[in-house]
Amino acid sequence: MSSNRPLPSWREGSSRSALLSFLDRADELPEERRVAVFDNDGTLWCEKPNYTQLDFFVAELRQAVGNRPELGKRPEYAAILNGDRAALAELGLERLAPALMELFAGLRPEEFEERARDFIMKAEHPGLGVPYAQAIYQPMLELIELLRAHSFSTFIVSGGGTEFVRAVSRDLYGIDPEGVVGTLVMYEFVRQDGEPVLIRTGRLQGEANEGATKITNMQVHLGRRPILAAGNSAGDAEMLEYAAAGDPGLALLVDHDDSEREYEYASEAGTFEASEPILETARRLGWTVVSMRSEWDQVFL
Amino acid sequence: MSSNRPLPSWREGSSRSALLSFLDRADELPEERRVAVFDNDGTLWCEKPNYTQLDFFVAELRQAVGNRPELGKRPEYAAILNGDRAALAELGLERLAPALMELFAGLRPEEFEERARDFIMKAEHPGLGVPYAQAIYQPMLELIELLRAHSFSTFIVSGGGTEFVRAVSRDLYGIDPEGVVGTLVMYEFVRQDGEPVLIRTGRLQGEANEGATKITNMQVHLGRRPILAAGNSAGDAEMLEYAAAGDPGLALLVDHDDSEREYEYASEAGTFEASEPILETARRLGWTVVSMRSEWDQVFL
Repeated sequence: MSSNRPLPSWREGSSRSALLSFLDRADELPEERRVAVFDNDGTLWCEKPNYTQLDFFVAELRQAVGNRPELGKRPEYAAILNGDRAALAELGLERLAPALMELFAGLRPEEFEERARDFIMKAEHPGLGVPYAQAIYQPMLELIELLRAHSFSTFIVSGGGTEFVRAVSRDLYGIDPEGVVGTLVMYEFVRQDGEPVLIRTGRLQGEANEGATKITNMQVHLGRRPILAAGNSAGDAEMLEYAAAGDPGLALLVDHDDSEREYEYASEAGTFEASEPILETARRLGWTVVSMRSEWDQVFL
Repeated sequence: MSSNRPLPSWREGSSRSALLSFLDRADELPEERRVAVFDNDGTLWCEKPNYTQLDFFVAELRQAVGNRPELGKRPEYAAILNGDRAALAELGLERLAPALMELFAGLRPEEFEERARDFIMKAEHPGLGVPYAQAIYQPMLELIELLRAHSFSTFIVSGGGTEFVRAVSRDLYGIDPEGVVGTLVMYEFVRQDGEPVLIRTGRLQGEANEGATKITNMQVHLGRRPILAAGNSAGDAEMLEYAAAGDPGLALLVDHDDSEREYEYASEAGTFEASEPILETARRLGWTVVSMRSEWDQVFL
């Protein structure tokens, strides 16, 4: 960025103006109240055609089945490997997700992290022809950078696996592992050959980090209340509402309306009870909606 | 600190030497592996005659009963207020702790934090005649400072309540709220008069942060593996063992052997299965035992 204009990839428009006037007001606050949180999938990096983490899980599954073909007979794994939509729908996420998580049971955290980092850094994104690590939104990186220049603390509050995001949060976003709050797996402390080690189990700790859980988890893990939150889907609604209630407070909703440079899709409600599309909620509550197509001069790195 | 000698309050001796040679070796590591964790009660601040948090709870209880005398009839509260040892023993921690936590149910996190901060900063320590905020070990603050000068990230991993410690962690130790891992209360997200707010419940989330739970919680909350841990009681044993297994790794055990300037006591096993006193464990495993009496030139701020 050789430009001195703040947020260089953001075109003049309502979102950029809203951000800059929010920052003007936030400058008046004590620094410990300058807290910003970001969803990850669809907010900091591309979440289409699939969640990066799902692609990683499937790649790991293929490799595991290569080594131990009998694994491929397990109904959940067979359905995933064959892309059997009927079987996938019947099994549902509640059977598929734990089955995929079991692939990593027994690993030490560092081993999981290394595999995740390797995948994100090197594997090619199926739609964009670059590594996943480059399927990141340049304008959002600029926003993080500008917030830090205004003495904000910046955190990630993701529905994805905490360790999956932590594996690259420092390299991609300059956010330390303790600044990432996501869905958590349980660990066990054991002694292997006399050495004290932590190992992953195949079980989740608490609920998936979506919806109101994002807020309670922010309190529990960070002990901070955000005055800026950025998200893109129904799972971010409560977090956006919570940040918008700040004084000043800003809720930023990324609208994926750019079929040429990225993808065009309406956020799905997912597993959450959404009585209306998130874009409607945003308009009703006066959130700042970012049109990727018209407001971002550059989308990716 | 006008002295240029590192760790000015530490006398020449085995602990100071062990710390300085550990730092020499840690300087070779990438910065993200330089991670140090500290227990709080009895390691950073004085835990005698009572845990600070217990004194705070009792002060809050007195005030609550002053406002609503009928509260004083509850058996748990009556036993505490009357110092009725037989009743306290019969009720046990499993009934007393939740009863005390219920005092704060319904509060917003900021309200609890303010009360806790107020108490720690202003209330007088019953044995030392200074505010609790000054019942802090000067040599440990110097160690934290020196670790940071060597690019360490420093965290608190306490058996105490996370929010209680967070209320003062920045002021007393320069540690941000997200750097504090302790025993957690559950929160509820609600809307009050249309405003989205978080409120404390009276329930714990997970187990008390002691023993092996300290290790799994470090992974979950921080995503870091410490190479230096400091503690003083049986609840720190696993954390110390885990850090000592690093390469380099250092486990620091504060021995309260100073009846004149502080207190002299052997750490109790508490609720943990300890097959031996922690001092024995330390000697068996080659941890660095700090004699407060002979190795600290100054104890408090």
